[in-house]
Amino acid sequence: MKKITLPLIALLALSTPAMAQDDLAWRIAEDLTTEIGPRLAGTEAEAKARDWAVARLKALGFSNVRVDPFKMPTWIRGEERATLLRANPQKLSITALGNSGATPDKGLEGEIAVFSTFDAFKAAPDAAVKGKIIYVSHQMTRTQDGSSYGHFGVLRRQGPNLAAKRGAAAFLIRSIGTDSHRFPHAGNTAWDAGVSPIPAAAISNPDADQIERLAARTKTPLKLSLTLTPRFIGEQISGNVIAEIPGSDPAAGLVVIGGHLDSWDLGTGAIDDAAGVAITTAAAKRLLENGKQPRRTVRLVLWGAEEVGLKGASAYFAAHKGEAHAFASESDFGADRVWQVKFRLPDAARALQERISLALSPLGIATSKALATGGPDVGELIGSGVPGIDLEQDGTRYFDLHHTPDDTLDKIDRAQLQQNVEAWSIMLEMIANAPEDLMAGQKK
Amino acid sequence: MKKITLPLIALLALSTPAMAQDDLAWRIAEDLTTEIGPRLAGTEAEAKARDWAVARLKALGFSNVRVDPFKMPTWIRGEERATLLRANPQKLSITALGNSGATPDKGLEGEIAVFSTFDAFKAAPDAAVKGKIIYVSHQMTRTQDGSSYGHFGVLRRQGPNLAAKRGAAAFLIRSIGTDSHRFPHAGNTAWDAGVSPIPAAAISNPDADQIERLAARTKTPLKLSLTLTPRFIGEQISGNVIAEIPGSDPAAGLVVIGGHLDSWDLGTGAIDDAAGVAITTAAAKRLLENGKQPRRTVRLVLWGAEEVGLKGASAYFAAHKGEAHAFASESDFGADRVWQVKFRLPDAARALQERISLALSPLGIATSKALATGGPDVGELIGSGVPGIDLEQDGTRYFDLHHTPDDTLDKIDRAQLQQNVEAWSIMLEMIANAPEDLMAGQKK
Repeated sequence: MKKITLPLIALLALSTPAMAQDDLAWRIAEDLTTEIGPRLAGTEAEAKARDWAVARLKALGFSNVRVDPFKMPTWIRGEERATLLRANPQKLSITALGNSGATPDKGLEGEIAVFSTFDAFKAAPDAAVKGKIIYVSHQMTRTQDGSSYGHFGVLRRQGPNLAAKRGAAAFLIRSIGTDSHRFPHAGNTAWDAGVSPIPAAAISNPDADQIERLAARTKTPLKLSLTLTPRFIGEQISGNVIAEIPGSDPAAGLVVIGGHLDSWDLGTGAIDDAAGVAITTAAAKRLLENGKQPRRTVRLVLWGAEEVGLKGASAYFAAHKGEAHAFASESDFGADRVWQVKFRLPDAARALQERISLALSPLGIATSKALATGGPDVGELIGSGVPGIDLEQDGTRYFDLHHTPDDTLDKIDRAQLQQNVEAWSIMLEMIANAPEDLMAGQKK
Repeated sequence: MKKITLPLIALLALSTPAMAQDDLAWRIAEDLTTEIGPRLAGTEAEAKARDWAVARLKALGFSNVRVDPFKMPTWIRGEERATLLRANPQKLSITALGNSGATPDKGLEGEIAVFSTFDAFKAAPDAAVKGKIIYVSHQMTRTQDGSSYGHFGVLRRQGPNLAAKRGAAAFLIRSIGTDSHRFPHAGNTAWDAGVSPIPAAAISNPDADQIERLAARTKTPLKLSLTLTPRFIGEQISGNVIAEIPGSDPAAGLVVIGGHLDSWDLGTGAIDDAAGVAITTAAAKRLLENGKQPRRTVRLVLWGAEEVGLKGASAYFAAHKGEAHAFASESDFGADRVWQVKFRLPDAARALQERISLALSPLGIATSKALATGGPDVGELIGSGVPGIDLEQDGTRYFDLHHTPDDTLDKIDRAQLQQNVEAWSIMLEMIANAPEDLMAGQKK
């Protein structure tokens, strides 16, 4: 049976007229990264991205297009400079982590205490930390599934807070990134209540190499001049942009898909996450155009303030958790091809899972036995029992670009972007119209 | 004969004890880029590089190690910022060209006039240039032999001067580079006598894409805010570092080899040209260590102020042209493997050329029919009739990194660096000891 069905589905998937020369995803990614560019959460740039998205989604013919606004504490970048004070002073490529504290405007100078791993830092005596500019290294592994980000990213998320509690003057990390270019990788950090933020920054991998080579060559500690002048600008407005394709059977529950609209501010947020916005919007548009009302209402959510702590996701969950959600999934891992699919569907939808697996296989997508997590912005929904699917993108080069100035449109491979659209279109059509009860497993 | 000789030479080349695990070239490249880092011509950093080189060459056992100092007008970089003034202002990745003029400290604002090629700019009426911020694009081709640099580099070398003469407010170019990273490519420009320098800068390729996409989307001209505050600091000291292996036959003429010691200031000058310094020093050291005095004196010249207009080369030629030079060659095209050899030897040395060809062939080096040029810093020597050889390096990725902040040690491939050392060692030993008269073709 399978051997007969597979080629038929493949043929069907590839011959649908709407799929020929459909470059909507590319155009969306190009427009968002070009017209708006960087769009840090809580800023005017993110507000302009929402305006752009609302206009675009209305023009595409979606229903109920609106913004769900919310307030959030907002941090913005300032000047950032670091110079190794050696016989020949050398500038480092550096960027403040999100929520970093500031140095004095004229900067600070201090000795660098070099640690080879986060564990080595944690094990160091307080005397080796207090008053020092802490630098912590690691060797982030390149992985296809991005799993190393969780492990190594802990340094960025937790390191500055620990260092501040122990009296460090500043906290610097080797970038959470797999490239060897002189781009620092931005990203959020967080402070426990009552902890005063200290300057916290990431250094590009070649600059981190330089610090480590120099530290290994000298017995006297390296000194650094550091200027970081970011600041908190209080509560600002962010928001989720929402658009819908109304379904014929409200009782069948909502299908939530999307990507996040905000980006870090150094690049133009192409792979993170104009691509996800583009892929899911293009898939939804295809469903809208196929001429048949779906059974379930499809709700496209272009999330706000993802990068700075999933603020849009929290706001959405707080506002909408009472609605019946049949499904949730986000595209937020670049623009490279989907290579694997993971499911988290109720037992009652076993046959649906089988059908989706079969339909995706011609695109070169293997079925994993692991459970889907849905993506960052739908984590709370999934955690509350909503079913989801991960169309897992190849992340081999994702952390070369992630959160760097180099995350720009030219990094999106059009053919791979389009493979994502095909996979999402197939999945979305099947999920939206499935006769199965997708909410069978949820508490009422 | 050839078919028998070739494998024997290959065996010889690979089995010489000194060649096993010789990492001198790597250590030199690492030390220079780490201890000194960026070393702009005429600055303290370049002076420190000379001190480093003198100490290192003495420690390696070379004779007559000294600095040949010279004076040169010196330009240094200041602040550099550019922001596209759109609905959502976007920062560009930009760097001033060497000898650029400055904007006011607070910057200038103006309309951008976009030209797709240098020829289009040259053909534009004066009204389209006067008072404008000129931006000129092009599509630089990736080549193995680097020949596209001459063609496209004209834009950087001549464009700003032409624009200044026509009253432009500033002149911006798409970087002379083949990468798609957000690094601008620095490099020198020059002004005719009496022309007042205007601000002149290069923009990274992704930022150039962004300008062009936005320009194509709007009928009203793009506006730019530009701040460049470089300055001229008058005559400063630079110098060539010289070291020798005295030969047994002074009448046979000098063999000059080397790389250049200065670098652009954005990166640490690893492929441009710590690699050339390292390769030629390691080859000379091997000759020094082989236990037999060479026939000809080998003069290793680590050139100063190459990047800013071959100042070291001019100073050397002025001071030393009266000496008998039998040979000159420079390594200044990165650290990737030698793929081709070009000759410029007198007819009397036809047999030597044949021997060198045969000896290099086992390293995968083909013989070209084109004439050698010797390399930038020996151009005047070659032009005056001195023989030379080009050990031509693979430049396929050279202009991805050339003059960018990303020219750092991690970009040097150790195995390819070592292949360069093997090729230079073979050539140098043969040239230094050749019984042929290498100066047969020179005017007396």
